[in-house]
This record gives sequence, structure tokens and C-alpha cells, in this order.
Amino acid sequence: MSFKGQHILSVKQFDRDSITRIFDIARQMAPYASRKKRTRVLDGAILGNLFFEPSTRTRVSFGCAFNLLGGEVRETTGMESSALSKGESLFDTARVISSYSDVIAMRHPQAGSVAEFAEGSRVPVLNGGDGANEHPTQALLDLFTIERELAASGLQIDGMHIAMVGDLKFGRTVHSLSKLLCLYRNIKLTLVSPAELAMPDDIISNLTNAGHQLVISDKLEGHLNADIVYQTRIQEERFPSKADAEQYRGKFRLNQEIYTRYCKSNTVIMHPLPRDSRIEANELDNDLNLNPNLAIFRQADNGVLVRMALFALTLGVENIVKDYECAVPWYSNK
Amino acid sequence: MSFKGQHILSVKQFDRDSITRIFDIARQMAPYASRKKRTRVLDGAILGNLFFEPSTRTRVSFGCAFNLLGGEVRETTGMESSALSKGESLFDTARVISSYSDVIAMRHPQAGSVAEFAEGSRVPVLNGGDGANEHPTQALLDLFTIERELAASGLQIDGMHIAMVGDLKFGRTVHSLSKLLCLYRNIKLTLVSPAELAMPDDIISNLTNAGHQLVISDKLEGHLNADIVYQTRIQEERFPSKADAEQYRGKFRLNQEIYTRYCKSNTVIMHPLPRDSRIEANELDNDLNLNPNLAIFRQADNGVLVRMALFALTLGVENIVKDYECAVPWYSNK
Amino acid sequence: MSFKGQHILSVKQFDRDSITRIFDIARQMAPYASRKKRTRVLDGAILGNLFFEPSTRTRVSFGCAFNLLGGEVRETTGMESSALSKGESLFDTARVISSYSDVIAMRHPQAGSVAEFAEGSRVPVLNGGDGANEHPTQALLDLFTIERELAASGLQIDGMHIAMVGDLKFGRTVHSLSKLLCLYRNIKLTLVSPAELAMPDDIISNLTNAGHQLVISDKLEGHLNADIVYQTRIQEERFPSKADAEQYRGKFRLNQEIYTRYCKSNTVIMHPLPRDSRIEANELDNDLNLNPNLAIFRQADNGVLVRMALFALTLGVENIVKDYECAVPWYSNK
Repeated sequence: MSFKGQHILSVKQFDRDSITRIFDIARQMAPYASRKKRTRVLDGAILGNLFFEPSTRTRVSFGCAFNLLGGEVRETTGMESSALSKGESLFDTARVISSYSDVIAMRHPQAGSVAEFAEGSRVPVLNGGDGANEHPTQALLDLFTIERELAASGLQIDGMHIAMVGDLKFGRTVHSLSKLLCLYRNIKLTLVSPAELAMPDDIISNLTNAGHQLVISDKLEGHLNADIVYQTRIQEERFPSKADAEQYRGKFRLNQEIYTRYCKSNTVIMHPLPRDSRIEANELDNDLNLNPNLAIFRQADNGVLVRMALFALTLGVENIVKDYECAVPWYSNK
Repeated sequence: MSFKGQHILSVKQFDRDSITRIFDIARQMAPYASRKKRTRVLDGAILGNLFFEPSTRTRVSFGCAFNLLGGEVRETTGMESSALSKGESLFDTARVISSYSDVIAMRHPQAGSVAEFAEGSRVPVLNGGDGANEHPTQALLDLFTIERELAASGLQIDGMHIAMVGDLKFGRTVHSLSKLLCLYRNIKLTLVSPAELAMPDDIISNLTNAGHQLVISDKLEGHLNADIVYQTRIQEERFPSKADAEQYRGKFRLNQEIYTRYCKSNTVIMHPLPRDSRIEANELDNDLNLNPNLAIFRQADNGVLVRMALFALTLGVENIVKDYECAVPWYSNK
Repeated sequence: MSFKGQHILSVKQFDRDSITRIFDIARQMAPYASRKKRTRVLDGAILGNLFFEPSTRTRVSFGCAFNLLGGEVRETTGMESSALSKGESLFDTARVISSYSDVIAMRHPQAGSVAEFAEGSRVPVLNGGDGANEHPTQALLDLFTIERELAASGLQIDGMHIAMVGDLKFGRTVHSLSKLLCLYRNIKLTLVSPAELAMPDDIISNLTNAGHQLVISDKLEGHLNADIVYQTRIQEERFPSKADAEQYRGKFRLNQEIYTRYCKSNTVIMHPLPRDSRIEANELDNDLNLNPNLAIFRQADNGVLVRMALFALTLGVENIVKDYECAVPWYSNK
């Protein structure tokens, strides 16, 4: 199995072996990401970092991952600066921009647009999110985080218990993560959401067909003693009416008190970020910041590792990263 | 003749020798642009890539060209982030920004602005388009493409037959290209446009004075058997009335059927891009994408070569590019 | 005293020794900034250049300073592309973005925001301006410029005469500069402004308590024979009424005629830039551009040196910059 020259468009393209491979490479990236070592394996390579829809953290994460492998980044933010707005096809844009780059990371508001772009591209395209459709690097970094967090307790994805909480209907991240979990065995999933925002039927079928055990609830209480709690944000405008939203207000919030009462002592808390810190919508309270099991910022770190791995793999340099290490004394000076 | 320290502001500043020199250097850039070799001749140099008007492809092309020579890029997109909007003169902006950079590429919506900026700049300024006025790197890449495409058939610019089609009145690219063609000999030009969008008289005079042979028509039929067809886009709003636009609708479109019927077997098709891919305005049909004589994406590739050449020349390193080649094993790994 | 790992948030955090240290390092940066030498001391380091409020010159100055030390720059411009607009706290944004970077430069429209961000950051944060509050690198580059300009006449900051002119009430730069001047001895300050735009009382108290001698006036005449004239811009909308603004119109303008009449032969003219070049608001006339004592563009050069020094100091590499010099032949080719 080789990723060289391949596009990364959808979680559906991965089997368990390919995920194992990506995660192996991602782990090897850790010393470079933590500035303990420096590699210039991609010296002279150019990433086209095309964010036709703004997303600071994803854009910067892709860009840093590429810099950490020694490459350069050219980028664009927003649609207004694009010929797409003058009626140019995604195929044409891809043909032109891909002639400037060695690999492309792309986000676009329209579902399917990144795959359409990839057809015109002469270099590998990594989907950085195409509307409600896919955001495969987010799904991979979520799964990678789960694996790493569980490993600290001697656990594995096979056989784990994960609770997904919040908006399971519209939350792209929980859908993608669920699809990846179908590649694993014997998972217990607890799905906690307002009835109006329940996990779609097709995903539930997939999870059941994969042999996983499902518990569905519209209450937090008694459902948080999992290995992983994956919290998401509920936006009021997702409910059919303001009264429906009102009925559930605050019932899916997580804070230290609820953690202490309902979670296990080592339950790991995850969230796709950003979390809303305004009082009225606080799905994950700031008082959890001191809880060592809050993994939300380690997710961001892991995102860099996963993206470094995908760049190395799609450019076919994953086995020579180490050969282009170079001394950078300011690291040791740190 | 030396370009070192010179601004590149207008096609009018070139004679035939200087174009020959630019194209010679551009050809030498090919192995670096195609990632067969790597040079770090501009290691430590900084390009100020100032796009006061957005233009993704031109901006990224300049930036990549500079990266491919080993330099770094700092850039700005759009006017809102600029002190210009607070009443600062272009002279002041130039004085300040040029103190950060070794060379500047600049686009600005206002005709004459780049030349005004250049007066305040302490480093060479490359005009990346100043409104309806000039876009010399586009003109050079067009001419460079013509030369390369003709060479494949054993032809030269001297003595060629080129048809320019579409909006010849407002199309900046066909005006600039025409000015450059006046430096060559014995060209046959066929100018095909709606009567309302005909080539301006002064450019026609120049072409005639240069000894070229002109044919003017408002019909495609019988006028496409040229070595080069340079197609441009017609925007409806350029016509005096909707009825005038209606009259010509679809009459200047090019597709494979028309190509087969009216072009030679090796007629090269060019277009400044972006082309409009929406059905109602399709000046260059997608069914031409499979035609090997469609050169529109090779134009984009050539743009990088020409811009690399201009950076090397204005910074005076064109003869030492080769001396700073370095091994980049991921290239051979490609 | 060590700056390593420290945030640079406010001029209040500096004592005289720390300023002396910053300026010593800034002076050592001159050969790198002027492309006489190249250093790669920060090879592999990443600057997060976060401009949540646009400011081209400050953003590009930070970015170039980092490139000149060998590092890479990832950046963001404007608020719209930020999760902050979705209710994310500055703490969360800082936690995530700082995991991508080795140091952060940040501008934000809201006073206090950069300090709040710094609390969440895992790496040093340099304040690039937080609303009306602070812009410490501007204050440092102003003071550094004063020191360098005076040195050319054999003078020092201790004992100098400086006139500050224009809007002394709302001008953030004159406030910050005044705070720094309190660390020095025996300065004569002439404060020239419309009565409505006079220097705030607390700053006057600080200056008086520092033992400095103050002269306050609402007229230019007779008050410009200083070593330094620091001119600022008066915006009409700062006055209580249009009539008040009218009364002072043009009375604080500086041009060559006024310079010749009222200044000393070596009076240095400074301005925080941008200056307004539109006729009706011309606080510093273009006819001064030929005056060798106009230091406004040297201020911009000095800004790069000061920012290079701050990056080197906060990353703890200020003593090894020289060890990572490398040959860059295009410099000698210049």
C-alpha cells in the first residue's frame, strides 16, 4: 500500500492497515514537531495552501506541518481573491495552481468541491474540509488522539468505550469519526444528544453492522463513565424552534463538577474546537482546563503530526525523513 | 544591457535583445521549476509580494517563482490592510515596504500606481498589473509561450500567423502582446471581434507601421487557420446595450468541432485565463481539454519561468543560479 | 536579566538596563538586515504572525525580521478568519496557535487582548498593538531611532531636547515614548498641541516626577529648536466640533520653510507613519523628503532591527546569531 501521489479526500478511502501506517509515520514526526530534531526532507517543495473558506487553525496547522518538513508554503484565504468567482471551473483552477505546487491542501465551502478540484490537479490534494461533506484530517487526528490517550492507560481502540455528546445530527466530526470506528472491533458507543439532533440512521446502521454496541440517550447522567467523551457544540439555530432549543438548554454541558460525578477518574475529554466560551453556550467549561484528562489541546498538537505524516506519505518521502536531519543548535539551546 | 536594479513596469521598456535575454534565462529556469534540480541562489532574499488588488494566480505564481530560487516571500492581499487607505502616498508606502524587501512584485487597481510606487522604492519593482494599464509579465509569458509552441513545429515568431479573438478593445493582454509583436518581423495578424470591441486604432497603426499584415473580421469562420489562436473573453457588460450583446452571443466561441473545421491540425490555442466555464459565456469549451494543442495550462507553467528569470535578472544573479545548486534527494525520489 | 521565554507586552516592563540590552542586540542585527551577512540561527523556527487587525507595515516588518534570522512565518490577517468570531476565548486560541509556533507576534483591536492571549500561550508573545493600549515595539523603535540619530551629532538621550507635536491626547506612540523617556535623565520636553488635544495629566506627572523639564504650548513658532521633533497626525474627528478643528487647521504643519525658520540645522524629524499626504491634512510636507534630517524612513529600518533583537532575545539565541552565519554570495554580488 502506497500513498505516494494519492489524494486524501475522504475517510472512506482508508482501511485499517492504511490508518496504522499513517499513525506509525505520525508518531515518527513527534521529535520534529517538538523541535528536538530538524529535518529538511522537503527542502524546495511548495505547499499550495488554498483556503477558499477561512479556517485559521486548520490552515496554520497544514502550513506549519509543511514548514516542519523543510518545505515552503504559498497560500490563499477566502473566495474573493479567486478566479472561481469569475466563473472559472475548479478543474481550471486546479490545473493552474497545481502547476505551482508539489502538494495542495484545500478547504472550500461546497461539498464535493475538493474532489472535483483534485480531478484537475497534477499533484496530491489533501481535503481540508469541503462544507458539510468531509474533513478527513480532522477525523484522523481525532482517532490518533484517541489511540494515544488510551495507550497511556494501557487501552486500545478495539474494545474501548466512547461517548459522543451534543449535536450528533449535524456534527461533521462525529460522523467521520464514526465511519473510521467501523474499521475497529468491539467498541461500546454511547450517543448522547437531544432527540432532534440524534445521530443519522445510516451511521447507526454502519456502527451496528461493524458489530459495535450502541447505547442512545438524551441525558448526560449515567452515560459519561466512558474511556473517551467526545463533546461537540450545540448551536441553537439547529433546533426546529426556539422553544425546542430552550427545553435542552444547558443539559449537555460538561464541567468539572459533572466530570467528578459521572466520569471515570481517567475519562479523556475531547472536542473538535473551537468551543464556545460565551456563558450562554458553554459546552465545555473552562474549569476543566486544569483537568489533566482534558485532551482538547493535545488534539491540536496531534493534528500537526498527522498532517506531517500525510505530506510525507503523499510525497513519498516517509522513509527518508530521518536521512535529511540537520543540526539546529537553537533547539538544544531551548 | 543589464536588468540589475531595474524596475519592470511596462512592455514599452523592452527591445528585441532584452526579450531574447529574458527568454534565454527563462529557459534555463526549467529544471528548477520542474523540480529536477534545486538552487538556493536567493537564499536569504525577501520578495515583497504586494497585491493591493487580489489575483490569486498571479500572486502565487510570483511567490512560487521566488521560492524556487531559494528566497522567502512576505505578502499582502487587498487594500483594506494598507495605510494607503489612510491617505498615505504611494511614495511613502514604497519607501517603507521596500526597506523590508530585496525586490517587490506589485498589483494595484489604479493605472500608473505601480510606476509611482517604483519612484519611492529602494529595490526593483515588478509590475503585476496596474488596472487597465500594464501587466508586462503576462505579456512576456504569452510571447514566451508563443515562441516555445511554435518551436515545436519548427516555426518562429518572425513570419508567424496569429489570430486574436474576442474582446480586442478592452483586453489588456492582447494590447500588450501586440506592442511586443511590433518588435518582430513579417507577422500576419487576424483580428476577430465584434465591431464594437475592435482593436483600438493606435495599436493597429503600430502593427501596420511594424510592417505586419493585418486582416480584420467580425466572424470566426475562415479566420482560424493560424499558427496561434489567442482567444479572450467577451463580457456582456462591455457592449453598449443588451441587444448589441445578444447579436453576437456565442459567435466567438471555440470548441473542438469548430477547431476541427476551421483550424490547422497544429494550431495552438491560447487564452490569458481565467476562462468562464458557465454555459452562457463559454468562450473556450472544456471539450478542448483533450486537444494537445490547447496551450492554456502551459502558459501558467511558462509564467513561473518568466517570473523566475525576471527575479534573477533584476537581482543580478542570472549567471550564478547554477553555482548554488544543491542536492535535494526528494526530487530524485519523485 | 534574561528575556528568554518572556512576553513583550508593555513598555512598562522595561527598565533602563533591559532597553540598553535590546538596543545592543538591535545594533548587532544591522549587517544581517542590510544583507551584508546572512545568519540561519532560527532555521526551523516558526513565527505565528497573528494580525487580527490589519496593519501591513507592522505585520511585514515582524515577518521580515524573522525571515532575516532564518525562520519561517505563518500568518493570519483580519478577524473574519478566526474562531474568535465564533465565541472562542483568547485563551483557547492561544493554546492552539501557540502549539504551532515558536514565538508569536500579535495585533488585536481590543485593549488588553494580547496580554489575555499571552496567558494561554505556550511560547513568547510580542504585542504588535492592542487597540489604544500598547504598541511596545513601536515605542522601542522610536527610542532606538532617537538614540541613533542623536549619536550622529554626539548627543545622548540623557540631556536631549525633544518636541512632541500634534495630537498628544490620543496619540498612542507619544504616550508610550513618554513612558520610556521617564527611564532617562534631564530631558527637556516641549509639548505642542491644540489645547483640546493636550498630553494627559498622568503622563505629564510621570515626566515631571522623572525630573524632566516641560514646556507646553499650542503654537509651533519658537518651539521647534529641539534635537528631535516628533510630529504626529491630527485627525479632525478628534475635536469636539468642526469649528474647534477649523480654528487649528494647518497650524501644526511642518514643511521645509518652517523647518528652516524654526528648527536647528540638525533637528531630526520623526513621525510614527503613515503620514497623510492628502493636501488638507498634510502634517509633514513632502518637500521635507530631501532634508537629510527627516528620519521617518530610517525609523522603518530600525523597526526591523528592534524586532530582530526581540525575537533573538525571547528565543534565547542572541549570543549565537554570529555562530550560524553562512555565505550567501548574492549579497556580495549586490
